[in-house]
Amino acid sequence: MKQPIGIIDSGVGGLTVAKEIMRQLPNENIVYLGDTARCPYGPRSSEEVKTFTWELTRFLLTKEMKMLIIACNTATAVVLDEIRNELPIPVLGVISPGARAAIKKTVNHRIGVIGTEGTIRSKAYEMALKQINRRTVVHSLACPKFVPLVESGEYAGSLTERIVSETLQHFNNKRLDSLILGCTHYPLLEPIIRRVMGEEVEIISSGEETAREASVILSHLHLLNTSEEAPNHQFFTTGSKEIFKKIASEWLQITSPNVNRITL
Amino acid sequence: MKQPIGIIDSGVGGLTVAKEIMRQLPNENIVYLGDTARCPYGPRSSEEVKTFTWELTRFLLTKEMKMLIIACNTATAVVLDEIRNELPIPVLGVISPGARAAIKKTVNHRIGVIGTEGTIRSKAYEMALKQINRRTVVHSLACPKFVPLVESGEYAGSLTERIVSETLQHFNNKRLDSLILGCTHYPLLEPIIRRVMGEEVEIISSGEETAREASVILSHLHLLNTSEEAPNHQFFTTGSKEIFKKIASEWLQITSPNVNRITL
Repeated sequence: MKQPIGIIDSGVGGLTVAKEIMRQLPNENIVYLGDTARCPYGPRSSEEVKTFTWELTRFLLTKEMKMLIIACNTATAVVLDEIRNELPIPVLGVISPGARAAIKKTVNHRIGVIGTEGTIRSKAYEMALKQINRRTVVHSLACPKFVPLVESGEYAGSLTERIVSETLQHFNNKRLDSLILGCTHYPLLEPIIRRVMGEEVEIISSGEETAREASVILSHLHLLNTSEEAPNHQFFTTGSKEIFKKIASEWLQITSPNVNRITL
Repeated sequence: MKQPIGIIDSGVGGLTVAKEIMRQLPNENIVYLGDTARCPYGPRSSEEVKTFTWELTRFLLTKEMKMLIIACNTATAVVLDEIRNELPIPVLGVISPGARAAIKKTVNHRIGVIGTEGTIRSKAYEMALKQINRRTVVHSLACPKFVPLVESGEYAGSLTERIVSETLQHFNNKRLDSLILGCTHYPLLEPIIRRVMGEEVEIISSGEETAREASVILSHLHLLNTSEEAPNHQFFTTGSKEIFKKIASEWLQITSPNVNRITL
């Protein structure tokens, strides 16, 4: 099936999912919408997140997607079930894939989760992890400073390094063996997070794992694209086309991504 | 849903899948059937493998399973599509999960596959890998000596070490960065295989990955077991109950597995 996979996010964070789709499913077309103008979703009320996420979904429904990925953890926590029940196509969030991957990797069953205030407040990861294995010990931490760093393109440098390091001190002596990046913006900070947490902690990127699950479900439903044409990716943002284009081309290593600005 | 996950295999190899199901889905019940009396399937004709696999499937259908996993690569290559089309429950093989995991892990797109003669002859991995990414370079090798070693309980020791090492010399200078264990018996030899291949090669166990995909599909279809009861696993073998029990208790770390011998 040539129809694209739809990806929505509060901004550029979902590009980490898009990148993995491009790597793990190189034949698939992608249509991406990032709500950069209203990012971050993390500190917003559930009602607002719900309304915004439905607006993004409705826009992508006009693009005839065959699957929708809600690449924002905050939106997944609040509105995945509702959207999944309403849409006739498979709808994936990023929380279950991250939780499942952590359960697969952990040995001591002590798992850390970092995310936005909204995601952590929802306890969605904790519930997903405990649903799979009740014995799991979960330590969660909201990191409200991380998304603004990434959206402004500041994902390296000494200021970022200091903020990440100070924030993650929370996990000292918690004996975690796995840490879930419960926000799709965080993989852009992954080299720093990895340095701060140390080699013995497995870093799990929900985005990467979501791409893997998209592949499983598309294949199970016989929806994979078997056409020989080169894929065609379209990106939409509600914010600055230039900043989005810069981050998308750096992160996805595409020289000139097809980016358009829209108003919802 | 409390109904068990059914697992069939030519012998004890599928226990590597059972082990991962127990780890990644600790609430699920398992019913396992190993056709030890007629193992290995690798050198048999397609017709024979097809007949035997249907016999195993029919036996497990009497146990009201909610999902069937064909944990034998040879059987998956020959008869997965046919069984999937006939059964009203989800049916998983071990080949696509292994292929997908390798695609996720590889960087240089040079992937090795080891399996039985039947699996390698079928080119099932090669097709699965190339279907996902045409650029993939696949080097395949049949290792007919490995299954008999495992089934006889000889999965360590210097003889085994020498056989594995001589067999895998085939891959010298092939510049692989990932090797798929395309037979569910091979994870029992994994420590030796890992030593022989060296640290820079990622070893992918199809069994481990299949458990992960079972979790994705059960969750997507709302079929996970949410009961609080401790799980109850049943094992059946067509061969020696004692040898099966010994391997199952060692490998699964259960003191007294519930094993019964049956005749098909």
